[in-house]
Amino acid sequence: MRAAVFEGPGNVRVQTVPDPQIELPTDAVVRITHAGICGSDLWSYRGYGSRIPGQRIGHEFVGVVDAVGSDVSTVKPGDVVVSPFVWSDGACDYCRAGLQTSCEGGGVWGEPDSDGAQGEAVRVPYADGTLVIVPKSLHGAEERVLPLADVLSTGHHAALSAGVRGGSRVAVIGDGAVGLCAVMAARRLGAERVLILGHHSQRLKLAWDFGATDVVSGRGEAAVEEVMALTGGVDSVLECVGAQGAFDTALAIIRDGGTIGYVGVPHAVDGLDIGRFFGRNIGIRGGAAPTRAYIPTLLTDVGNGTLDASPVFDLTIDLEDISAGYQAMDGRTAVKVLVRP
Amino acid sequence: MRAAVFEGPGNVRVQTVPDPQIELPTDAVVRITHAGICGSDLWSYRGYGSRIPGQRIGHEFVGVVDAVGSDVSTVKPGDVVVSPFVWSDGACDYCRAGLQTSCEGGGVWGEPDSDGAQGEAVRVPYADGTLVIVPKSLHGAEERVLPLADVLSTGHHAALSAGVRGGSRVAVIGDGAVGLCAVMAARRLGAERVLILGHHSQRLKLAWDFGATDVVSGRGEAAVEEVMALTGGVDSVLECVGAQGAFDTALAIIRDGGTIGYVGVPHAVDGLDIGRFFGRNIGIRGGAAPTRAYIPTLLTDVGNGTLDASPVFDLTIDLEDISAGYQAMDGRTAVKVLVRP
Repeated sequence: MRAAVFEGPGNVRVQTVPDPQIELPTDAVVRITHAGICGSDLWSYRGYGSRIPGQRIGHEFVGVVDAVGSDVSTVKPGDVVVSPFVWSDGACDYCRAGLQTSCEGGGVWGEPDSDGAQGEAVRVPYADGTLVIVPKSLHGAEERVLPLADVLSTGHHAALSAGVRGGSRVAVIGDGAVGLCAVMAARRLGAERVLILGHHSQRLKLAWDFGATDVVSGRGEAAVEEVMALTGGVDSVLECVGAQGAFDTALAIIRDGGTIGYVGVPHAVDGLDIGRFFGRNIGIRGGAAPTRAYIPTLLTDVGNGTLDASPVFDLTIDLEDISAGYQAMDGRTAVKVLVRP
Repeated sequence: MRAAVFEGPGNVRVQTVPDPQIELPTDAVVRITHAGICGSDLWSYRGYGSRIPGQRIGHEFVGVVDAVGSDVSTVKPGDVVVSPFVWSDGACDYCRAGLQTSCEGGGVWGEPDSDGAQGEAVRVPYADGTLVIVPKSLHGAEERVLPLADVLSTGHHAALSAGVRGGSRVAVIGDGAVGLCAVMAARRLGAERVLILGHHSQRLKLAWDFGATDVVSGRGEAAVEEVMALTGGVDSVLECVGAQGAFDTALAIIRDGGTIGYVGVPHAVDGLDIGRFFGRNIGIRGGAAPTRAYIPTLLTDVGNGTLDASPVFDLTIDLEDISAGYQAMDGRTAVKVLVRP
């Protein structure tokens, strides 16, 4: 089959690789119909992280089950399915508790010796614990389902982690796909006021459609002043960047007793000075989103039409054009790229 | 009146100072009958922090109302009262929300131009927002009430912040008075397993009486191994030290998805590497305890006899012997000192 392979910084190319096969009775093979390029794929592309040349890439997909192992009972060939960005066994204590990202048998698409989502097909370990069936009503609308694999579920994780509830005043830091989805997720949980902080006018334009009540496009101190003037401080900050400056801004705009829900993969964070949190009782909660726990609930709202993050996909490419997709994301000419194998 | 004055590191002495007076209609003057020396007083004594010579000291007291200003309506002369370690106006948004430590009109006993608790009397700003009446059934048992001013309420804050609930597996780091009280607070919230990590055999002996199910007295890696062998990891860590090593230990023994409730005043903490929290979804919550929010509830349990942290006071001294009290705390010959003016 054809699949994207990471060949080094700035170099992701489609190559012919072995077809995935059922290897264990708990496996499924899924033919991918829709995949995404994620902001976190860009870290490898830009030369950060530990991905080595030859590794696959991509961790967001919707597809059709092609084959299942003898122990798989919840999906069958022909089912349309969505996958979280990690697979998980569905049986361990962490999976039962809804923290599938900590599953001891789990892994992330594209890790060594696994398939990536940016390809024609993927071998899915622990198919029962991993895949979620997409109802027939959403067949043909898979671009609305695909954000559940990562960005929308991750935005939801930020909002839940930050304790967003009815009436909350919320600030979202970051106008990437996760930030935009976090706006939508915060509104879904009843937030009354949702500000988004970012610097890209095209993305911020989208934020209004996603439910933002205020857009703050200044930088640093100017952004802080604007948020404080608008709100006097917010109850929850959804940190969707992962950089030191984002945490500094979060601390400057959050009210005492508030919670920072962090889902930005930490990079270039010097270390949080807990002394700055102590007197103000600021909490920090979040991390890698256990999207498998959230997909069933969020899928209901996608199905009834109240949750549609598909506008984050502002560029659709064929798998063979994957390099162009990475270039568009890297150059910020696209918010998020939909890949059609 | 006579009151303890901080004269510099290693030098706290009782001196004659002006008698407190009603200065504002919202003030009360309270004659102190029971005060404590707190672990955080030791920071000044040991030369850390910003306390300057001439400042008062002590922030835990129970006493009798001597006089009230014309606007005070909830307490009257003769009432026995307990005070949180901060005063608060009781009227602002933060006070209404139960975060009195963030009251904009608030302050902490012993700050410049305020009285300290280690003295014969204290002027209480915002008496209505600050003081809590001690019921008659507890008159004569004020040593059971005094821990509510700080250490027991702070232990409760750690447990609440860490999400302790029925069945929780909890580790308390630190065997000072707060750590011991945190054990008691965790058990009160229904924790099934409460381990305490510390190094002082006399204090750890007390931990059993406070409800600890396991005592871990090793250091560093040995302590981690012992906790893991006993529990396989805990759901909640109550961090009652405030040092880098305590956070490192917390991360090593907490299960993924767990929460560190931190109440140790941060000192010598290098900065938390949020990258170590991200993949594991570890939360951090806590800070300076809003004891005013907790005292009424906890006082009920003190009154009905189910909550008695008074054994932390293993040395009682007269106010005039305050130096000996600090020496005993500093030399760890006493867990906590009760001061009788």
